[in-house]
Amino acid sequence: MLKREKPKERFSYDPKKVLQQLERFGKKVLEEITRGRNPFIDVPTRGLSNVYFDERDRLIKMGDKTSRRYLFHVAHARKFMQTLLISAYIKRLVSEGKHASLREAYYANKHTIPGSKENTFEDQSESDPIIEDLERMFGVLREEMHITADRRGYIYGDVVIKDGEDEFNASKLGMGGWAVPGTVEHIEFPEINVDYVLVVETAAMADRLIEEKYPKKEKALVVATQGQASRGVRRLIHRLHYEEGLPIIVFTDGDPYGWYIYSTIKQGSINLAYLSEKLATPEAKFVGMTMDDIKKYGLENVTEKLKGIPPNKKGGPTGDYKRIIEEMNYPWFQNKEWQRQLKLALEWGVRIEQQALANKSLEFVAKEYLPEKIGNEELLP
Amino acid sequence: MLKREKPKERFSYDPKKVLQQLERFGKKVLEEITRGRNPFIDVPTRGLSNVYFDERDRLIKMGDKTSRRYLFHVAHARKFMQTLLISAYIKRLVSEGKHASLREAYYANKHTIPGSKENTFEDQSESDPIIEDLERMFGVLREEMHITADRRGYIYGDVVIKDGEDEFNASKLGMGGWAVPGTVEHIEFPEINVDYVLVVETAAMADRLIEEKYPKKEKALVVATQGQASRGVRRLIHRLHYEEGLPIIVFTDGDPYGWYIYSTIKQGSINLAYLSEKLATPEAKFVGMTMDDIKKYGLENVTEKLKGIPPNKKGGPTGDYKRIIEEMNYPWFQNKEWQRQLKLALEWGVRIEQQALANKSLEFVAKEYLPEKIGNEELLP
Repeated sequence: MLKREKPKERFSYDPKKVLQQLERFGKKVLEEITRGRNPFIDVPTRGLSNVYFDERDRLIKMGDKTSRRYLFHVAHARKFMQTLLISAYIKRLVSEGKHASLREAYYANKHTIPGSKENTFEDQSESDPIIEDLERMFGVLREEMHITADRRGYIYGDVVIKDGEDEFNASKLGMGGWAVPGTVEHIEFPEINVDYVLVVETAAMADRLIEEKYPKKEKALVVATQGQASRGVRRLIHRLHYEEGLPIIVFTDGDPYGWYIYSTIKQGSINLAYLSEKLATPEAKFVGMTMDDIKKYGLENVTEKLKGIPPNKKGGPTGDYKRIIEEMNYPWFQNKEWQRQLKLALEWGVRIEQQALANKSLEFVAKEYLPEKIGNEELLP
Repeated sequence: MLKREKPKERFSYDPKKVLQQLERFGKKVLEEITRGRNPFIDVPTRGLSNVYFDERDRLIKMGDKTSRRYLFHVAHARKFMQTLLISAYIKRLVSEGKHASLREAYYANKHTIPGSKENTFEDQSESDPIIEDLERMFGVLREEMHITADRRGYIYGDVVIKDGEDEFNASKLGMGGWAVPGTVEHIEFPEINVDYVLVVETAAMADRLIEEKYPKKEKALVVATQGQASRGVRRLIHRLHYEEGLPIIVFTDGDPYGWYIYSTIKQGSINLAYLSEKLATPEAKFVGMTMDDIKKYGLENVTEKLKGIPPNKKGGPTGDYKRIIEEMNYPWFQNKEWQRQLKLALEWGVRIEQQALANKSLEFVAKEYLPEKIGNEELLP
């Protein structure tokens, strides 16, 4: 039986820490300028060359390569100026307790430099990487710097949430549930009456479980990701696991996209490798859909064909086949359970959706499939 | 000043009505069979040929063309069988107070007909149109038949919502807000302490307004559509206007997609013409972004170029230009205010985002732009 465990981390959000880091950084640059030196920043290198899979922690991590960026350097000056502009902006945001989206941060800092025709930023593609650089430099999430991510996803279950002055139970909001905001750093959980978190890919399936009163009957907190999990949702899952000791179970479609959603929640993504320690949850487990489910529950009639060309056909592999082969090479799928599922998918050339379980009956997923698999811990690692 | 008006409609959700319609339909078919006749259904014709713009009601509506579908007819039998299957399924759903997604409805009704190799449905593209046919035949929303639409969007503001046994205030849910479910038929509003509804295209802008305490200060209910408004959100807007008398103001990006979002909320869409009377809100007004805003607020530096080829260039018009020209021909944009904005967009070749207002300051949109424009009723029809 899944039960809440002892927490491994403490609620750690501290805006003062970010302010201190920014101040230290600003002072260092100022000091170098007043001493007549050429100020520089060491920015951790981005890209695959500086990313590795840490076998011990089971996380995608950032390496220790850095590159130096000087103020007085033809190739660096623009980025240096941009880094200072955004740093100053973030200092204002955090001091004032305000948040801005990536796009607002871009618009707010775009202007023409007086006495020139030069714009500080031409495009959001110039400001986003600067914010990422600051995340890498300071080892903080951009959410901690009050830059919010796109929001998507909602939760439902017997958990009391404290967000600012408001406190409410996320199982008393009708069928709607609570919309997860872009930033969840400041959120606290004064009361938790669930045994585990069930992360669900599709809104339709989450709504099915809510209608069947699954969260209440099985003491679960349902988290609907509505596709790929947003940063806010991934951070929420991480916090619920590490700070509240809740086991995390993921339930997606049985297709390469669903397995990728699981993989991102579990291990982080290559783009955000430097943030895995705050966003990923390597202890997450996977309940389904699996290829074995098709046979076990007699769902052959409601599978769909994989898209693309199989590896043994001319022009292949493409589409789903290509994605599956890529996933077979992920370090965290190097175990017999996952290799078996991925091989079966290639062999049978099919995929299976969560909602296909409705073929048995609407209640089947809530009354049999999930309680049985989770109760018996028939979970993939 | 915008104020709540006298309601024009009453809360009208009545599952019994749907059940009666289904029963009457089933009995009619049964009677014809027992009398040895060939049973038929008259289904309102779909497509543009049976759609018109009602100038008086200012709504896209369905015409009165129908086509007859027989049970004993080589070309009709399959669809006839499917219509009966789905009707029976919906009767079960409504009787049991359960809801199913379109996809669940497909999976639940897909099976191989005993003694044959024939599947009842091969694909969801077979079951969706049957459900639409039933909507047309009975003049009810599929939500009233307990078939839920995809959900997207959330709301925030001083409104008490009653959803089943739960009752809560949608301004006491932290920064998150209440996630709007796929079906809002059963929702009631025991208490409304706002003067109007502000419908906002992007989550980032809605979050900005929440952070600036706009809903409280301006007594507004903020509805975030997160792109094109979902059916649930459109129905919610309709109900808040007609049943609760709240004026509806729409705030989107100043680009053809934003204007299309407005247009769909206001007038309905061609696909769903037969549902305009329940989904659309022709009295909705538009606050921005407009082309005039660019000059008035000095936003020239934060516009973006329209995508595509202009009409006077070789190969044009394409992309944004083409969309704008199409929108100029919409019956509901046949007024000088909208023609002016659309012409200016073509002339200047630019678009402007909601979030570009952050260039003035983060607070600008909440403290000046919206209160000024809405206070002075500088709204487009």
